Amino acid sequence: MGVPDEQIHPVATGRAAQTVKQHQESQDLVFYSGWFCPYVQRAWIVLEERGISYQYKEVNPYKKEPHFLSINPKGLVPAIEYKGRALYESLIICEFLEDAFPNYEPHILPSDPFDRAIVRLWTDHVNKQIVPANMRLTQAQDPQKQREHLEELNKALRTLVEKVKGPYFLGEQFTLVDVALAPWVVRDWVIAEHRGYSREAVGGGWKEYAAQLESRESVLKTSSDKVHFTEIYARYLRDEAQSEGAKAIRAGRSW
Amino acid sequence: MGVPDEQIHPVATGRAAQTVKQHQESQDLVFYSGWFCPYVQRAWIVLEERGISYQYKEVNPYKKEPHFLSINPKGLVPAIEYKGRALYESLIICEFLEDAFPNYEPHILPSDPFDRAIVRLWTDHVNKQIVPANMRLTQAQDPQKQREHLEELNKALRTLVEKVKGPYFLGEQFTLVDVALAPWVVRDWVIAEHRGYSREAVGGGWKEYAAQLESRESVLKTSSDKVHFTEIYARYLRDEAQSEGAKAIRAGRSW
Repeated sequence: MGVPDEQIHPVATGRAAQTVKQHQESQDLVFYSGWFCPYVQRAWIVLEERGISYQYKEVNPYKKEPHFLSINPKGLVPAIEYKGRALYESLIICEFLEDAFPNYEPHILPSDPFDRAIVRLWTDHVNKQIVPANMRLTQAQDPQKQREHLEELNKALRTLVEKVKGPYFLGEQFTLVDVALAPWVVRDWVIAEHRGYSREAVGGGWKEYAAQLESRESVLKTSSDKVHFTEIYARYLRDEAQSEGAKAIRAGRSW
Repeated sequence: MGVPDEQIHPVATGRAAQTVKQHQESQDLVFYSGWFCPYVQRAWIVLEERGISYQYKEVNPYKKEPHFLSINPKGLVPAIEYKGRALYESLIICEFLEDAFPNYEPHILPSDPFDRAIVRLWTDHVNKQIVPANMRLTQAQDPQKQREHLEELNKALRTLVEKVKGPYFLGEQFTLVDVALAPWVVRDWVIAEHRGYSREAVGGGWKEYAAQLESRESVLKTSSDKVHFTEIYARYLRDEAQSEGAKAIRAGRSW
């Protein structure tokens, strides 16, 4: 049986395509990407934010190639290969890009230990509350379930927004909380068009914070044209997507 | 309706009671604990490993007191209060105890950035695969489900064990992976007595690695007598426990 997700548009477009073009030369750090994936975009944002040299390689995670699988047995993107070693999991890659390049600016984690912990705490909220609620909402077919998940998502967003100092989560510094959340903000037109979500309805300054996130240069530089997302999200909206995340949500588990 | 978990034994016993006794004086860092909780034990292990001064305060999370709720609105343990600010979530506290006391020895995160990332990756495996499988196994009532969850747990443990260099996960250094896992090793007699689990059956050196973890001094110093766990785990084994984790597992979600 064919995997429907094999049919996705193969490469980044728009601003992201320009960024890809600038990162074709061989480098110590190889970034294995899927242009459409929000988890990938997190790591990509950090690479761009911090001016780290990297070679971009597009991987279709549904057609896994031998070298990619040899460095990354789970076959998931994002992944990086650095001096012969491989790493995956978006937030762990983000923290690695902070630890391994301590003299690069800007930092995505604050220098104060307590503030670092607060950033990790709210990044965890994005991962455990906001992202799963968004996915459940996107994949839900029953109108009553859709309403429940929309309320669940709005509640999780409001809880976060109460802590946002502005313009970014921690104030002037753009940190890992903002990185973790921005890819879902960029894609929230999907649930706005199909699931009744609206930034205004969240309230509490969410609309203003979301606008800050989506207009950050590193976010713009890693975003593809909206049109090519349509065919991908159509599968999520019909609950037919075959990504690891989509399958986990369908099975009633967190992701 | 009464919450059954209110009836638990109120204080630490055995080696842990001695440790509690030594940490009664006022300190900059207040550690809010529940002696029986494996998440609490993670943070407690790090405090003991690194020789950080702390004041121990026992909290019954099912009878939340006003000051505790004021610093920690979710009311969960472990929590710390440090110079007037509060923090919760076991692994975030562990990383904070590393970041805030950089000159203390030993370190629970390696200095090499790639090794740090590997430690975080496998700590994530403990949290997302091993702990939920253990909880599902403990709470499962149907024998067929119990067999499935036992196999799921054994598989998650084997995946980890393949990466253990010995004596600890990363070799000689006792790191966050070991910290994250040790409290569940200390408690695995529950699933051995009631759910058919055995360390030998996991294979691949799990028995030897588990023995290393449970005999680490910081683990021994933070462990209470087995007898008082029995009444707590009886509720988990009947799937009647009211902790946040137990409720999440019952609802079919990860924790």
